[in-house]
Amino acid sequence: MKYIKNPSEIEVKSFEIIQGIIDEIRPGYEFKNEIEEKIIKRCIHTTADFEYLDILKISDRAVDKLVDALKSGATVYTDTNMALSGINKRKLKALGCEIKCFVADEEVAKIAKEKKMTRSMAAVEKAASEEGRKIFVMGNAPTALYKVMEMKKEGKLNPDAIIGVPVGFVGAAESKDELEKSDNEYILAKGRKGGSNLAAAIVNAVLYSI
Amino acid sequence: MKYIKNPSEIEVKSFEIIQGIIDEIRPGYEFKNEIEEKIIKRCIHTTADFEYLDILKISDRAVDKLVDALKSGATVYTDTNMALSGINKRKLKALGCEIKCFVADEEVAKIAKEKKMTRSMAAVEKAASEEGRKIFVMGNAPTALYKVMEMKKEGKLNPDAIIGVPVGFVGAAESKDELEKSDNEYILAKGRKGGSNLAAAIVNAVLYSI
Repeated sequence: MKYIKNPSEIEVKSFEIIQGIIDEIRPGYEFKNEIEEKIIKRCIHTTADFEYLDILKISDRAVDKLVDALKSGATVYTDTNMALSGINKRKLKALGCEIKCFVADEEVAKIAKEKKMTRSMAAVEKAASEEGRKIFVMGNAPTALYKVMEMKKEGKLNPDAIIGVPVGFVGAAESKDELEKSDNEYILAKGRKGGSNLAAAIVNAVLYSI
Repeated sequence: MKYIKNPSEIEVKSFEIIQGIIDEIRPGYEFKNEIEEKIIKRCIHTTADFEYLDILKISDRAVDKLVDALKSGATVYTDTNMALSGINKRKLKALGCEIKCFVADEEVAKIAKEKKMTRSMAAVEKAASEEGRKIFVMGNAPTALYKVMEMKKEGKLNPDAIIGVPVGFVGAAESKDELEKSDNEYILAKGRKGGSNLAAAIVNAVLYSI
């Protein structure tokens, strides 16, 4: 069986094919700017789903805030270990950033049970108790995304930016509509689609632009 | 902000909504059997993408082989740490199964460099060198999927079943077409779509059915 075995060759070729398909299915489609192009194309690269041309929304200062926070050693908090797994840790480490996911933390499980909230929500409370600049990356749990927005409103949390791409049928679309209306800097996917893989792809696209 | 915070309630409600949407967009759609229904619905649950109604293909004996292997303490080999992260380890452990991903293994990196192959391919070689029954779960790397099929043909590897859902634009669709034509038991997604999240969802659907 003959197939391309060089990873960097595969990646370059993939992005060429993606542009070719965009030219075909959406002639004249224009990205707002170079970084938005990179983010959306990486979302398509990760999902093979061209709907991200339409549903990915990036607030005006989101990328600047993300880049500034990442250059300043912010901590990245994810709602799943899957999202954490997919994010380029080598790049983060080189920038002096940490990445954490508290969802499987024993203390968090205990708090969630006591307070009758999801573990994802309790994980946000734990993140909020830590020092330093924060980026939240939510690919799974609408409850966690709501919790970040609630704590921000209550003055208990001040994230630099939120990657808000929970996937699903209960609360996911609604949570992202809330995020779009909020005063947070965000990258989000409208509607039901999203996921941990998408969340990781978005963070990586920003990391690779630095 | 009001939203459902009970995880099991969210899951039950999600699957009701998924069935409702299927009734609406595909009236009269019939799943082949109960386990196929569970697998496809969990794929939709994970991606919010109803295309999986059409593109997910399950070979006749795939589920039986998967269940038998899992009940016999097989080892699950994934091509990414993301897929590994998403698979229910508590369930696997209860069945006496191990799960491994060698892609970030130092020895594998060395072999890949020497043999000029991808790390994913070298990871398959390492898996093949181990004893015991094997399930391969490929959500990312067509090269790894080809490698499993090659080694099977050469008599160097005898997987019980292959979850073959690499996503992407270079080799992904082709690798899955090969898998469909092969004599392996498979669960695959036709075309470009797939991913580590999907791979994990499929394994979990089978695990939850045991």
